[in-house]
Amino acid sequence: MPAVKRGSMMREVFHQSLEDVQSRLVEIAELVTVAIEHATRAFGTSDVALAEEVIEADQTIDDKAIALDELAIEILARQQPVARDLRIVVSALRVSASLERMGDIAEHIAQLTRMRFPERAIPKGLKGTFTKMGELDVQVAKVLTEILRTEDLTLIEALRDLDDKLDDLHLSVFEKVLSDNWQGEAGATVDATLASRYLERFADHALNVAKKVAYLATGEWAPDTDTITVVASANGVELPANADD
Amino acid sequence: MPAVKRGSMMREVFHQSLEDVQSRLVEIAELVTVAIEHATRAFGTSDVALAEEVIEADQTIDDKAIALDELAIEILARQQPVARDLRIVVSALRVSASLERMGDIAEHIAQLTRMRFPERAIPKGLKGTFTKMGELDVQVAKVLTEILRTEDLTLIEALRDLDDKLDDLHLSVFEKVLSDNWQGEAGATVDATLASRYLERFADHALNVAKKVAYLATGEWAPDTDTITVVASANGVELPANADD
Repeated sequence: MPAVKRGSMMREVFHQSLEDVQSRLVEIAELVTVAIEHATRAFGTSDVALAEEVIEADQTIDDKAIALDELAIEILARQQPVARDLRIVVSALRVSASLERMGDIAEHIAQLTRMRFPERAIPKGLKGTFTKMGELDVQVAKVLTEILRTEDLTLIEALRDLDDKLDDLHLSVFEKVLSDNWQGEAGATVDATLASRYLERFADHALNVAKKVAYLATGEWAPDTDTITVVASANGVELPANADD
Repeated sequence: MPAVKRGSMMREVFHQSLEDVQSRLVEIAELVTVAIEHATRAFGTSDVALAEEVIEADQTIDDKAIALDELAIEILARQQPVARDLRIVVSALRVSASLERMGDIAEHIAQLTRMRFPERAIPKGLKGTFTKMGELDVQVAKVLTEILRTEDLTLIEALRDLDDKLDDLHLSVFEKVLSDNWQGEAGATVDATLASRYLERFADHALNVAKKVAYLATGEWAPDTDTITVVASANGVELPANADD
């Protein structure tokens, strides 16, 4: 076989690997979408069987993220990509870590549901807020999947809007919990604090993924963390709007 | 210049880059150690000036993490490392992300301190627990720095012990908050929930870093997440011991 032909075959194999990386990221994002859809539904309806499903399914997301990392490292070792190809592989390593954490968050929401069962996991007076936050997170997952599939950077603005709405709702949970009208016991306050934080963090991770996709397109590496803005709430208590852990 | 000589010079430059990667990781870990030391001290003594220092210094940690990522990507592109060298560079990308998050956590604790000032940030009845958690996190940061400096994998066991102690204290915070004796208002409950979660998460991230260092030594890639164990607390309320977001 002439050397030229072999070179071209190698390149073809390489591009198949890169396509494989992308289609695997999309596949994991789709699993995360199902996870957050089921987790928030289970949380809202105290559906413990559905919560169990989410908890069990998270292992698949973790396994697929690890398999993708191994593929990415193998590509780095064997094919020694440069320029844009290198950025695709490095970004994939970071995106898979964020998708894995988004899956973990869906699992935590399912766990809250299971812990409180047969009681309702959503504290009284917060049903509407948490339902809305759940719906926004499902939209976040869908838009993110679309960004990974199409690399359409104009969708990042939509993601940013969803994230802003979730930040506002997150703050409104604390306003309610810290207001004089709050009747919830300490357990309800803990649940509200954790659930709100999970639902808000989900969108932060999605935005981080989107920034990595933007890096692919532009070569500009955006830092992982947003600037943390502190917003004064109605009763004078301040909270970090975008706390990142 | 003979080709052989140039090759050997290239190798030397390459190994200098790898040493540079390692010494930068150690440097960031040292900054994180100072951050958590100051943050937990400020939190315990309501020292708002020290809290401000921590918040300001976090930008340096973020900048150094980004600079390290850029160096790692440049090494991948220019020097196309394989085998152990490739693992060092890929691990560095992951370790820097975890160190950055540990710095963010120190910043969040400082922010809690600033928000509550001139009130105490630590809710009544939890001073001893949070002081202990702070001391353990400082030890966590010191052991982690040592692991990065020496690659001594036997230290990982010490880190695991510290993490276990922090998980126990984290659960004890919830037990206290959810007990009949808890007199705290909703604001104190929110503070306790968030602070305890930050202090516990700090050690989780450190353990994740240590696992990456172990990967360097063994070639086995450990997943980012620990198994989440649910522990029944004294009053029958269950909490995820190792929740990961």
